[in-house]
Amino acid sequence: MGKNSLTEILKSNAQFYHAFEGLSIDMMDNLWKHDENVICVHPGWELLIGWLAIRESWNIIFQNTEVIKFNITNPKVRLFDNGGVGIVVCQENIETSDDGQKDRIGVIATNIFERCANRWLMIHHQGSLISNYMPPNISPQ
Amino acid sequence: MGKNSLTEILKSNAQFYHAFEGLSIDMMDNLWKHDENVICVHPGWELLIGWLAIRESWNIIFQNTEVIKFNITNPKVRLFDNGGVGIVVCQENIETSDDGQKDRIGVIATNIFERCANRWLMIHHQGSLISNYMPPNISPQ
Repeated sequence: MGKNSLTEILKSNAQFYHAFEGLSIDMMDNLWKHDENVICVHPGWELLIGWLAIRESWNIIFQNTEVIKFNITNPKVRLFDNGGVGIVVCQENIETSDDGQKDRIGVIATNIFERCANRWLMIHHQGSLISNYMPPNISPQ
Repeated sequence: MGKNSLTEILKSNAQFYHAFEGLSIDMMDNLWKHDENVICVHPGWELLIGWLAIRESWNIIFQNTEVIKFNITNPKVRLFDNGGVGIVVCQENIETSDDGQKDRIGVIATNIFERCANRWLMIHHQGSLISNYMPPNISPQ
Protein backbone atom coordinates (compact mmCIF):
# COMPACT_ATOMS: atom_id res chain seq x y z
CA MET A 1 0.00 0.00 0.00
CA GLY A 2 1.47 3.36 -0.99
CA LYS A 3 2.09 5.37 2.16
CA ASN A 4 1.38 8.63 0.32
CA SER A 5 -1.94 7.35 -1.01
CA LEU A 6 -2.90 6.19 2.47
CA THR A 7 -2.15 9.61 3.95
CA GLU A 8 -3.97 11.39 1.13
CA ILE A 9 -7.09 9.23 1.44
CA LEU A 10 -7.29 9.76 5.20
CA LYS A 11 -6.92 13.48 4.55
CA SER A 12 -9.79 13.39 2.03
CA ASN A 13 -11.85 11.42 4.55
CA ALA A 14 -11.18 14.07 7.22
CA GLN A 15 -12.10 16.82 4.74
CA PHE A 16 -15.45 15.15 4.18
CA TYR A 17 -16.30 15.41 7.89
CA HIS A 18 -14.91 18.93 7.98
CA ALA A 19 -17.33 19.84 5.15
CA PHE A 20 -20.19 18.13 7.01
CA GLU A 21 -19.45 19.96 10.28
CA GLY A 22 -19.08 23.21 8.35
CA LEU A 23 -22.44 22.59 6.62
CA SER A 24 -20.54 23.66 3.50
CA ILE A 25 -21.95 22.79 0.11
CA ASP A 26 -18.88 24.42 -1.47
CA MET A 27 -16.56 22.00 0.30
CA MET A 28 -18.79 19.05 -0.67
CA ASP A 29 -18.68 20.33 -4.26
CA ASN A 30 -14.92 20.27 -4.05
CA LEU A 31 -14.42 16.77 -2.63
CA TRP A 32 -17.08 14.72 -4.47
CA LYS A 33 -16.59 13.51 -8.03
CA HIS A 34 -19.16 15.27 -10.23
CA ASP A 35 -20.36 12.19 -12.00
CA GLU A 36 -23.65 10.45 -12.67
CA ASN A 37 -22.36 7.20 -11.12
CA VAL A 38 -21.51 8.41 -7.63
CA ILE A 39 -23.65 6.95 -4.85
CA CYS A 40 -24.82 8.13 -1.44
CA VAL A 41 -26.88 6.35 1.21
CA HIS A 42 -27.77 8.51 4.20
CA PRO A 43 -29.08 6.56 7.22
CA GLY A 44 -32.72 5.68 6.57
CA TRP A 45 -32.82 7.39 3.16
CA GLU A 46 -33.46 5.91 -0.26
CA LEU A 47 -30.52 5.24 -2.57
CA LEU A 48 -29.19 8.41 -4.22
CA ILE A 49 -27.35 8.07 -7.54
CA GLY A 50 -25.50 10.86 -9.33
CA TRP A 51 -23.93 14.06 -8.08
CA LEU A 52 -26.97 16.29 -8.73
CA ALA A 53 -29.23 14.18 -6.49
CA ILE A 54 -26.50 13.84 -3.86
CA ARG A 55 -25.73 17.55 -3.88
CA GLU A 56 -29.43 18.30 -3.31
CA SER A 57 -29.48 15.89 -0.35
CA TRP A 58 -26.59 17.78 1.28
CA ASN A 59 -28.47 21.03 0.75
CA ILE A 60 -31.50 19.56 2.53
CA ILE A 61 -29.41 18.14 5.38
CA PHE A 62 -27.45 21.37 5.86
CA GLN A 63 -30.63 23.49 5.83
CA ASN A 64 -32.07 21.30 8.57
CA THR A 65 -28.98 21.08 10.78
CA GLU A 66 -28.04 23.64 13.41
CA VAL A 67 -24.87 22.13 14.87
CA ILE A 68 -23.27 18.75 14.14
CA LYS A 69 -19.94 17.44 15.45
CA PHE A 70 -18.10 14.30 14.45
CA ASN A 71 -15.60 12.23 16.39
CA ILE A 72 -14.27 9.71 13.86
CA THR A 73 -12.90 6.49 15.37
CA ASN A 74 -11.19 3.41 13.97
CA PRO A 75 -10.78 4.47 10.34
CA LYS A 76 -9.81 1.41 8.32
CA VAL A 77 -8.40 1.91 4.81
CA ARG A 78 -8.18 -0.63 2.03
CA LEU A 79 -6.32 0.68 -0.99
CA PHE A 80 -6.43 -0.75 -4.51
CA ASP A 81 -3.71 1.37 -5.96
CA ASN A 82 -3.71 -0.06 -9.48
CA GLY A 83 -7.39 0.73 -9.77
CA GLY A 84 -6.97 4.10 -8.12
CA VAL A 85 -9.61 3.25 -5.52
CA GLY A 86 -9.51 3.51 -1.73
CA ILE A 87 -12.17 2.31 0.71
CA VAL A 88 -12.41 3.88 4.17
CA VAL A 89 -14.66 2.41 6.85
CA CYS A 90 -15.00 4.34 10.10
CA GLN A 91 -17.30 4.98 12.99
CA GLU A 92 -18.95 8.40 13.14
CA ASN A 93 -19.63 9.37 16.77
CA ILE A 94 -22.05 12.23 16.19
CA GLU A 95 -23.34 14.94 18.47
CA THR A 96 -26.08 17.24 17.21
CA SER A 97 -27.49 20.35 18.89
CA ASP A 98 -30.84 21.84 18.02
CA ASP A 99 -32.21 24.68 20.17
CA GLY A 100 -29.91 23.54 22.98
CA GLN A 101 -31.21 19.97 22.74
CA LYS A 102 -28.28 17.59 22.33
CA ASP A 103 -28.49 14.20 20.70
CA ARG A 104 -25.85 11.54 20.19
CA ILE A 105 -25.88 8.83 17.58
CA GLY A 106 -23.42 6.32 16.17
CA VAL A 107 -23.08 5.61 12.47
CA ILE A 108 -20.78 3.22 10.62
CA ALA A 109 -19.74 4.74 7.32
CA THR A 110 -18.15 3.40 4.16
CA ASN A 111 -16.48 6.18 2.17
CA ILE A 112 -14.94 5.31 -1.19
CA PHE A 113 -12.50 7.56 -3.03
CA GLU A 114 -11.27 7.41 -6.63
CA ARG A 115 -8.02 8.93 -7.79
CA CYS A 116 -8.87 11.54 -10.43
CA ALA A 117 -6.01 13.63 -11.84
CA ASN A 118 -3.91 13.13 -8.69
CA ARG A 119 -6.75 13.97 -6.32
CA TRP A 120 -8.80 11.48 -4.32
CA LEU A 121 -12.48 12.33 -4.90
CA MET A 122 -15.42 10.78 -3.06
CA ILE A 123 -17.50 8.45 -5.20
CA HIS A 124 -19.49 6.64 -2.49
CA HIS A 125 -20.80 7.33 1.00
CA GLN A 126 -23.00 4.99 2.99
CA GLY A 127 -23.98 5.50 6.62
CA SER A 128 -25.69 2.90 8.81
CA LEU A 129 -27.09 3.66 12.26
CA ILE A 130 -25.78 1.53 15.11
CA SER A 131 -28.67 0.35 17.30
CA ASN A 132 -26.93 0.01 20.64
CA TYR A 133 -24.74 3.05 20.64
CA MET A 134 -22.50 3.94 23.60
CA PRO A 135 -21.54 7.55 22.92
CA PRO A 136 -18.17 9.00 23.89
CA ASN A 137 -18.21 12.56 25.19
CA ILE A 138 -17.35 14.73 22.20
CA SER A 139 -18.51 18.04 23.63
CA PRO A 140 -15.79 20.67 24.00
CA GLN A 141 -14.49 20.76 27.56
CA MET B 1 -15.73 -2.05 -18.30
CA GLY B 2 -15.04 -5.70 -19.13
CA LYS B 3 -18.32 -7.39 -20.03
CA ASN B 4 -17.11 -10.69 -18.58
CA SER B 5 -16.13 -9.10 -15.28
CA LEU B 6 -19.51 -7.40 -15.08
CA THR B 7 -21.34 -10.69 -15.65
CA GLU B 8 -19.14 -12.51 -13.16
CA ILE B 9 -19.60 -9.90 -10.44
CA LEU B 10 -23.38 -9.90 -10.83
CA LYS B 11 -23.23 -13.70 -10.61
CA SER B 12 -21.21 -13.49 -7.38
CA ASN B 13 -23.69 -10.95 -6.04
CA ALA B 14 -26.60 -13.30 -6.83
CA GLN B 15 -24.73 -16.18 -5.15
CA PHE B 16 -24.44 -14.11 -1.98
CA TYR B 17 -28.24 -13.78 -1.77
CA HIS B 18 -28.65 -17.44 -2.70
CA ALA B 19 -26.38 -18.31 0.25
CA PHE B 20 -28.38 -16.00 2.53
CA GLU B 21 -31.73 -17.48 1.47
CA GLY B 22 -30.28 -20.98 1.84
CA LEU B 23 -29.00 -20.08 5.34
CA SER B 24 -25.83 -21.81 4.15
CA ILE B 25 -22.59 -21.14 6.01
CA ASP B 26 -20.82 -23.41 3.49
CA MET B 27 -21.85 -21.14 0.62
CA MET B 28 -20.79 -18.05 2.60
CA ASP B 29 -17.46 -19.76 3.26
CA ASN B 30 -17.08 -20.26 -0.45
CA LEU B 31 -17.87 -16.72 -1.62
CA TRP B 32 -16.18 -14.55 1.03
CA LYS B 33 -12.44 -13.88 1.03
CA HIS B 34 -10.96 -15.50 4.14
CA ASP B 35 -8.94 -12.52 5.23
CA GLU B 36 -8.53 -10.41 8.34
CA ASN B 37 -9.38 -7.21 6.41
CA VAL B 38 -12.84 -8.08 5.12
CA ILE B 39 -15.67 -5.99 6.55
CA CYS B 40 -19.34 -6.53 7.25
CA VAL B 41 -21.99 -4.15 8.59
CA HIS B 42 -25.37 -5.77 9.21
CA PRO B 43 -28.24 -3.28 9.72
CA GLY B 44 -28.01 -1.96 13.28
CA TRP B 45 -24.96 -4.06 14.20
CA GLU B 46 -21.50 -2.93 15.22
CA LEU B 47 -18.70 -3.00 12.66
CA LEU B 48 -17.34 -6.51 12.03
CA ILE B 49 -13.77 -6.87 10.77
CA GLY B 50 -12.15 -10.12 9.62
CA TRP B 51 -13.61 -13.32 8.27
CA LEU B 52 -13.78 -15.15 11.63
CA ALA B 53 -16.00 -12.46 13.19
CA ILE B 54 -18.10 -12.20 10.03
CA ARG B 55 -18.52 -15.97 9.73
CA GLU B 56 -19.74 -16.08 13.34
CA SER B 57 -22.29 -13.33 12.58
CA TRP B 58 -23.72 -15.39 9.71
CA ASN B 59 -23.98 -18.39 12.05
CA ILE B 60 -25.95 -16.27 14.53
CA ILE B 61 -28.20 -14.83 11.81
CA PHE B 62 -28.85 -18.23 10.22
CA GLN B 63 -29.63 -19.84 13.59
CA ASN B 64 -32.20 -17.12 14.27
CA THR B 65 -33.84 -17.09 10.83
CA GLU B 66 -36.63 -19.41 9.78
CA VAL B 67 -37.36 -18.23 6.23
CA ILE B 68 -35.91 -15.24 4.36
CA LYS B 69 -36.48 -14.29 0.72
CA PHE B 70 -34.76 -11.59 -1.30
CA ASN B 71 -35.96 -9.71 -4.33
CA ILE B 72 -32.91 -7.74 -5.51
CA THR B 73 -33.69 -4.60 -7.51
CA ASN B 74 -31.59 -2.00 -9.33
CA PRO B 75 -28.15 -3.55 -8.97
CA LYS B 76 -25.58 -0.95 -9.96
CA VAL B 77 -22.01 -2.10 -10.67
CA ARG B 78 -18.87 0.03 -10.70
CA LEU B 79 -15.85 -1.91 -11.85
CA PHE B 80 -12.21 -0.93 -11.31
CA ASP B 81 -10.69 -3.59 -13.48
CA ASN B 82 -7.05 -2.63 -13.03
CA GLY B 83 -7.45 -2.89 -9.29
CA GLY B 84 -9.48 -6.07 -9.55
CA VAL B 85 -12.31 -4.52 -7.53
CA GLY B 86 -16.03 -4.32 -8.24
CA ILE B 87 -18.64 -2.44 -6.22
CA VAL B 88 -22.28 -3.51 -6.38
CA VAL B 89 -25.03 -1.39 -4.82
CA CYS B 90 -28.54 -2.83 -4.81
CA GLN B 91 -31.83 -2.75 -2.98
CA GLU B 92 -32.73 -5.84 -0.97
CA ASN B 93 -36.52 -6.24 -0.81
CA ILE B 94 -36.75 -8.75 2.01
CA GLU B 95 -39.58 -10.95 3.22
CA THR B 96 -39.13 -12.96 6.39
CA SER B 97 -41.44 -15.60 7.86
CA ASP B 98 -41.34 -16.69 11.47
CA ASP B 99 -44.08 -19.01 12.77
CA GLY B 100 -46.29 -17.87 9.89
CA GLN B 101 -45.74 -14.20 10.76
CA LYS B 102 -44.52 -12.34 7.69
CA ASP B 103 -42.46 -9.18 7.77
CA ARG B 104 -41.15 -7.01 4.95
CA ILE B 105 -38.19 -4.69 5.09
CA GLY B 106 -36.07 -2.76 2.61
CA VAL B 107 -32.30 -2.59 2.82
CA ILE B 108 -29.78 -0.81 0.60
CA ALA B 109 -26.62 -2.88 0.35
CA THR B 110 -23.10 -2.19 -0.83
CA ASN B 111 -21.30 -5.40 -1.77
CA ILE B 112 -17.66 -5.20 -2.81
CA PHE B 113 -15.81 -8.00 -4.59
CA GLU B 114 -12.09 -8.51 -5.19
CA ARG B 115 -10.69 -10.62 -7.98
CA CYS B 116 -8.63 -13.39 -6.35
CA ALA B 117 -7.11 -16.03 -8.65
CA ASN B 118 -9.79 -15.44 -11.30
CA ARG B 119 -12.67 -15.55 -8.83
CA TRP B 120 -14.58 -12.55 -7.48
CA LEU B 121 -14.69 -12.92 -3.69
CA MET B 122 -16.71 -10.74 -1.33
CA ILE B 123 -14.59 -8.40 0.79
CA HIS B 124 -17.28 -5.99 2.04
CA HIS B 125 -20.99 -6.04 2.80
CA GLN B 126 -22.93 -3.17 4.32
CA GLY B 127 -26.69 -3.10 4.70
CA SER B 128 -28.72 0.01 5.67
CA LEU B 129 -32.42 -0.11 6.55
CA ILE B 130 -34.69 2.15 4.50
CA SER B 131 -37.10 4.00 6.79
CA ASN B 132 -40.05 4.51 4.46
CA TYR B 133 -40.16 1.19 2.70
CA MET B 134 -42.83 0.36 0.11
CA PRO B 135 -42.56 -3.40 -0.26
CA PRO B 136 -43.22 -5.19 -3.54
CA ASN B 137 -45.04 -8.48 -3.26
CA ILE B 138 -42.33 -11.12 -3.32
CA SER B 139 -44.37 -14.03 -1.97
CA PRO B 140 -44.72 -16.97 -4.35
CA GLN B 141 -48.06 -16.81 -6.21
